[in-house]
Amino acid sequence: MTEQVLKLGIPAGSLQKATVELFGKAGFHILDSDRSYVPRIDDEEIRLIMLRAQEMSRYVEDGVLDAGITGHDWITENTSDVVEVCELAYSKATNKPARWVLAVPDESKVRKPEDLAGGIVATELVNVTKAYFAARKVDVKVEFSWGATEVKARLVDAIVELTETGTSLRANNLRVIDTVVSSTTRFIANKQAWQDRFKREKIENISILLNAAINAMSKVGLKMNVRKSGLDSVLKVLPAEKSPTVSSLADSDYVAIEVIIDDKIERSLVPALKRAGASGIITYPLNKVIH
Amino acid sequence: MTEQVLKLGIPAGSLQKATVELFGKAGFHILDSDRSYVPRIDDEEIRLIMLRAQEMSRYVEDGVLDAGITGHDWITENTSDVVEVCELAYSKATNKPARWVLAVPDESKVRKPEDLAGGIVATELVNVTKAYFAARKVDVKVEFSWGATEVKARLVDAIVELTETGTSLRANNLRVIDTVVSSTTRFIANKQAWQDRFKREKIENISILLNAAINAMSKVGLKMNVRKSGLDSVLKVLPAEKSPTVSSLADSDYVAIEVIIDDKIERSLVPALKRAGASGIITYPLNKVIH
Amino acid sequence: MTEQVLKLGIPAGSLQKATVELFGKAGFHILDSDRSYVPRIDDEEIRLIMLRAQEMSRYVEDGVLDAGITGHDWITENTSDVVEVCELAYSKATNKPARWVLAVPDESKVRKPEDLAGGIVATELVNVTKAYFAARKVDVKVEFSWGATEVKARLVDAIVELTETGTSLRANNLRVIDTVVSSTTRFIANKQAWQDRFKREKIENISILLNAAINAMSKVGLKMNVRKSGLDSVLKVLPAEKSPTVSSLADSDYVAIEVIIDDKIERSLVPALKRAGASGIITYPLNKVIH
Amino acid sequence: MTEQVLKLGIPAGSLQKATVELFGKAGFHILDSDRSYVPRIDDEEIRLIMLRAQEMSRYVEDGVLDAGITGHDWITENTSDVVEVCELAYSKATNKPARWVLAVPDESKVRKPEDLAGGIVATELVNVTKAYFAARKVDVKVEFSWGATEVKARLVDAIVELTETGTSLRANNLRVIDTVVSSTTRFIANKQAWQDRFKREKIENISILLNAAINAMSKVGLKMNVRKSGLDSVLKVLPAEKSPTVSSLADSDYVAIEVIIDDKIERSLVPALKRAGASGIITYPLNKVIH
Amino acid sequence: MTEQVLKLGIPAGSLQKATVELFGKAGFHILDSDRSYVPRIDDEEIRLIMLRAQEMSRYVEDGVLDAGITGHDWITENTSDVVEVCELAYSKATNKPARWVLAVPDESKVRKPEDLAGGIVATELVNVTKAYFAARKVDVKVEFSWGATEVKARLVDAIVELTETGTSLRANNLRVIDTVVSSTTRFIANKQAWQDRFKREKIENISILLNAAINAMSKVGLKMNVRKSGLDSVLKVLPAEKSPTVSSLADSDYVAIEVIIDDKIERSLVPALKRAGASGIITYPLNKVIH
Amino acid sequence: MTEQVLKLGIPAGSLQKATVELFGKAGFHILDSDRSYVPRIDDEEIRLIMLRAQEMSRYVEDGVLDAGITGHDWITENTSDVVEVCELAYSKATNKPARWVLAVPDESKVRKPEDLAGGIVATELVNVTKAYFAARKVDVKVEFSWGATEVKARLVDAIVELTETGTSLRANNLRVIDTVVSSTTRFIANKQAWQDRFKREKIENISILLNAAINAMSKVGLKMNVRKSGLDSVLKVLPAEKSPTVSSLADSDYVAIEVIIDDKIERSLVPALKRAGASGIITYPLNKVIH
Repeated sequence: MTEQVLKLGIPAGSLQKATVELFGKAGFHILDSDRSYVPRIDDEEIRLIMLRAQEMSRYVEDGVLDAGITGHDWITENTSDVVEVCELAYSKATNKPARWVLAVPDESKVRKPEDLAGGIVATELVNVTKAYFAARKVDVKVEFSWGATEVKARLVDAIVELTETGTSLRANNLRVIDTVVSSTTRFIANKQAWQDRFKREKIENISILLNAAINAMSKVGLKMNVRKSGLDSVLKVLPAEKSPTVSSLADSDYVAIEVIIDDKIERSLVPALKRAGASGIITYPLNKVIH
Repeated sequence: MTEQVLKLGIPAGSLQKATVELFGKAGFHILDSDRSYVPRIDDEEIRLIMLRAQEMSRYVEDGVLDAGITGHDWITENTSDVVEVCELAYSKATNKPARWVLAVPDESKVRKPEDLAGGIVATELVNVTKAYFAARKVDVKVEFSWGATEVKARLVDAIVELTETGTSLRANNLRVIDTVVSSTTRFIANKQAWQDRFKREKIENISILLNAAINAMSKVGLKMNVRKSGLDSVLKVLPAEKSPTVSSLADSDYVAIEVIIDDKIERSLVPALKRAGASGIITYPLNKVIH
Repeated sequence: MTEQVLKLGIPAGSLQKATVELFGKAGFHILDSDRSYVPRIDDEEIRLIMLRAQEMSRYVEDGVLDAGITGHDWITENTSDVVEVCELAYSKATNKPARWVLAVPDESKVRKPEDLAGGIVATELVNVTKAYFAARKVDVKVEFSWGATEVKARLVDAIVELTETGTSLRANNLRVIDTVVSSTTRFIANKQAWQDRFKREKIENISILLNAAINAMSKVGLKMNVRKSGLDSVLKVLPAEKSPTVSSLADSDYVAIEVIIDDKIERSLVPALKRAGASGIITYPLNKVIH
Repeated sequence: MTEQVLKLGIPAGSLQKATVELFGKAGFHILDSDRSYVPRIDDEEIRLIMLRAQEMSRYVEDGVLDAGITGHDWITENTSDVVEVCELAYSKATNKPARWVLAVPDESKVRKPEDLAGGIVATELVNVTKAYFAARKVDVKVEFSWGATEVKARLVDAIVELTETGTSLRANNLRVIDTVVSSTTRFIANKQAWQDRFKREKIENISILLNAAINAMSKVGLKMNVRKSGLDSVLKVLPAEKSPTVSSLADSDYVAIEVIIDDKIERSLVPALKRAGASGIITYPLNKVIH
Repeated sequence: MTEQVLKLGIPAGSLQKATVELFGKAGFHILDSDRSYVPRIDDEEIRLIMLRAQEMSRYVEDGVLDAGITGHDWITENTSDVVEVCELAYSKATNKPARWVLAVPDESKVRKPEDLAGGIVATELVNVTKAYFAARKVDVKVEFSWGATEVKARLVDAIVELTETGTSLRANNLRVIDTVVSSTTRFIANKQAWQDRFKREKIENISILLNAAINAMSKVGLKMNVRKSGLDSVLKVLPAEKSPTVSSLADSDYVAIEVIIDDKIERSLVPALKRAGASGIITYPLNKVIH
Repeated sequence: MTEQVLKLGIPAGSLQKATVELFGKAGFHILDSDRSYVPRIDDEEIRLIMLRAQEMSRYVEDGVLDAGITGHDWITENTSDVVEVCELAYSKATNKPARWVLAVPDESKVRKPEDLAGGIVATELVNVTKAYFAARKVDVKVEFSWGATEVKARLVDAIVELTETGTSLRANNLRVIDTVVSSTTRFIANKQAWQDRFKREKIENISILLNAAINAMSKVGLKMNVRKSGLDSVLKVLPAEKSPTVSSLADSDYVAIEVIIDDKIERSLVPALKRAGASGIITYPLNKVIH
């Protein structure tokens, strides 16, 4: 009988804290992730290991792991043959995709990739960068960089580096020439594990719960009381695609309305609802939202 | 066409963390506030700058900023001519107003302000302190103190220093003679910005959302099921000024009651409700409460 | 007239942070617990003091404190004559009871307590350990250990040490021989204080609120809309012992269902509900749950 | 053949850093003392273990350790029968002996030990404290305190607590009634180990080197050139008990003088030597001074 | 009889650590400077207080302090009438004087002070800045800045800010227009204290010892053996202004040479001496050098 | 004219702090190494850059740098064609060469490299590891590991990892099978820079000074006075290869002896000298020792 355990890799480093928090919101509590590369989790059917995002897809492809979380960039860099279960739209600071950009010092004469012909480019993402220049038929030497790549922009001719907000590039007085590749976080599975009934169901359940928690992060519950006579004008203010829950109240002149909204629109919606006659407006946090 | 951006100052220093958290609860996510004096915010119509509370009102008055958050004390000290949009009742530790007190060493012979005639008083709040003594016709030399004012109480004759809980005064064995001025946090606007339609609406929206978040901090939602026959005795236990939402249930002998209460009274209310016959009592956290 | 104040001891050290958080969830805000052994609390009828769990029960027995929070292990060790108000099932990492185990180095020949006859055992829990060996009629010398007991396992013959997860034992290559005693956290009261009307009611209120907060930690609220025709199949999925609140909706074909569930079962329940036809499923966090 | 290794205990806690530095100055380099209770040392004939000073003498007496460093206070408290090799006059902040003092709150009416009759005294040093009161025929209950003793001064009637500079007592507004016992650091040995030729020589060598390093800490080397005709007046300025090394110089009118002096007197000596006609005065640091 | 104590102010903040270390090298050990504004010192004739450099000279002028250490910049800003005992050439990072510079954003059109006419300049050094512009007959509004002045360069028109290495200006993309004033650290005394025999001698002794320690920081002792026949060629390599100590050796063909040199020239001197025939060359650290 | 500047790479990471300290002892003061990858140095002829040791030799080979400090292991891994100027025997914890070892879990059945045929080996040192197995004709898949290699020992079949003291291997319960390569730190130069007169002299001077500082770290100066009649017996105790400096004293019955010794032998030498009749024995620290 096959052991009923899913070997799951989670990313060490910059996504580590956000990942542990996301699992917590999804209902899986991870312990000791600050001290151990094999943190405990309160689900006996999962065995966790923390690895760098860079090498995750290779271990999933080899079957050393059944599933893992990593970036699209590194799956491509490693040319790993794995199942992409879903995208996971959580991240360090913003929800924009991270970009690997070709950058040069502000004072460089380089304006376009072609200007780098014959030069040296330093990057952690060697294969993707080579493919990028090959596609443009530009002959450059691509060198592997062991971190702190920005500082090398003034040693070599250009760098290809990851940026989410551009802060680090600006602090190093670097100028972006082009985006080499964009990337978001992915939940991936080993191809054989995906054929195993237990493992696939486990992976899918984790996927549903992680996504329900991700949805809930940017949403709030909103409740208010509305006089029946004013119901239409209130409903018009609400986003069209939402179907609010309208409950009967003891006072039959009023109904209670409850709806889940994006926290982004809460900023403009709440004042509008008040003007439309709603009373007792509150918003409350959510743990999970399942569409 | 005027640029549709609000230049908003938020206080660096002791209120900084609480302010960033408050904006988060209000729906505005501030990034990098630990590393940058110009932190990012997820609203393209706002440009943030962090400044010390002491100098905020001068920059708002000059129009360098459209609006800002600072203390009543520093608005007075700087005699700044600005619009006070609202009070913001959040703070570091308690919700009592902070006080600037006149203090002397425990062992000092000074018992009242008049005993300081001819002496030296050290303070960060020079103008307010001068006005305080002038109003009492007591002739003292008021010296500006660059921080760590408590330690100077034994170098000069008295100090005027900010205290929220008295802890630091007690730790320095100082005795309070009088309160010079009380102060709470204020949201202020530049007079011209207040006349600009876009800026005023933006300021007012921020004010509504910050206050809704502040309200929510000290409140919880409470739900319970009550047998219709016992409804009156339960309603009597609830605070009179609250109008609870009473929903019909499928089981027509029961109704569901929901009400927003102060978390302070929750401590005594919950046991009382139980005794009055309510069942399935839960309380849940709130993000915003709009009166 | 007796002073209407409850002197309450809370544990310093490993449970300190969790205790302050628990009180916060229960509605009591504790300030300065990082800096002071007499932290402030926003309830004028309580005076707090932080002490090590080891000595708490002695001060409660003496009446120096009216009530306190400590472990069953230390009440036994100190043979303190106090009232046990309730168990408080919160803890550092897991919710399993902590165990004091008899442990030896991996390479030791000791396999059972009897093998230690004539040897030395180091522990913080001297009296309980002596009683354990006396009950087995094994003659050992039990020495008091001032912390870092694991390291002494290779100096003496065995140790009796607290373990929650076994991590520290494994890291020190120690092997568990037996469990000497299990322990959970308890809320205890002085016997005379328990006879005082004000103090007893205060202690009972704190107990209700702490337990309501503890309950809420492992539960979530769940809401969904269900077509009346599908109600039975949805209700069958829900845990039998829960009675869900079924509310009428304006659209009379549907009802809204709300239920409080363990966050552990949420992982399997949510997918099942979706399959059973529920829509608009959300879960939300709770502050308190009163059974 | 007996194993040629000395089992040596060094104190964990407040003396730990100073001890590791002292061994370094003595020529023994200790590694990993921040991470391990069995730190490595670059001498294959020594095996180190770090223990609390409180329990050191018991393990030395039992022969679990051959030698150790601890305080006179704890040797007495444990009534340990060990060899005192020497005093080691290094410490955390000053070189004054640490004192265990009987202290009460500033506001207490207690003025002398006798005023405590019938009361409770909290202390870590239970046996010494009991002996102190027994010698005065004062009947008190002495309770063991698990750290943070100062805070208990207001729970019980008095405390007996260690103080080096009085800072912590003042910060807690405590008043000293009496000194119960003074204590300095001691190097102790097990009685049987002291009879072992290898161990005794090893202990004595360590003792010589530690003391040579301690001597060097408060001394500096001083060199200067002096015209022969002025030699007497310079020598008169030097401390009488020192015999300076007078070297011949190539220029036969001058001699070079070198002497080891206390760094305390350097403050007054250097200006005096200059006035007496010395030139080229320098002082330099020392590693070891052997009398 | 006047109390034989010198009240001495030392600078809190950026110079604090370097000052405590300098006093240590001079033979005065300062304790608790991290925790207390009135740190202890092992000289009963000195009472220390730590104050910000900004306000030091005012307290020395008033006689609240007898002497103090501060910058020339703040003595000028406060127009304090004090005795300048000596310059103390130690500092945070380099030994270059710190400069207050007039700076603008890189992208500003301002090229010279006159371009700022009608603008606003933010600075901590208000009076000196006003005098600077008055001397150039440029009309600007000078505003007091409470720290983080660099960030204000983009709020107002220019700043006057302290820079030692330019790092912070570059990191904020600011361009230097002019140096407003240079400043080094000074030891200052109150005028009356300077007339008091005890205080003046104490101040002068401290001055001698601090300067002896400062001298020693950039110097090393150098020793070598030289064959008499090669002495001249070795002496030629040594700096002309130094008179080396030449000692006789037992082997009369050789002499030992000892000389104090700048550690800067050690880099080139040591290889040259080796080539000139010196043997057994060593250098060693110094505590004090008295010229 | 060529620019008279040496571009010098120093290692970021585990050797960084030790390298900055070594340069300081050698007389070169490096600033900002904690904050900047291009730290400043107080020598205008040197331009520093901090890079990972892993990539240093590639940049030196390319001429991007003139010289650099890195490990022998990485020079080999990169098969870089550079000049090895000298070995630099300083390091993190001990002075033993670091070793890259082939390791497996304690519980693995693998006993020798051949047992790994067909398996996977994870390492940072891919090329050296491939060569190691190729030389043994063992067919393994060598995978690049992005740090935390120890934890992968239980994912794949074996690892090749750097170890200095074995602590980390033991903590992960790994067993060493073989040493793949030993490595010490090297000072390397670019081949063309080595032909440039200015650069070569600069590199050689740095090499002399770094080595003089390294020598001094493990040595002390020792001085003592000896009666002439006892000189022979003292000299016999001193290490034979050392020629002590014997100076004449004013008291012609005595001579002063000075010698540089290894601090390792100081532990046994000092007691022996005392027994042989030496008096006034002191040892003092050294900055540089040139053989």
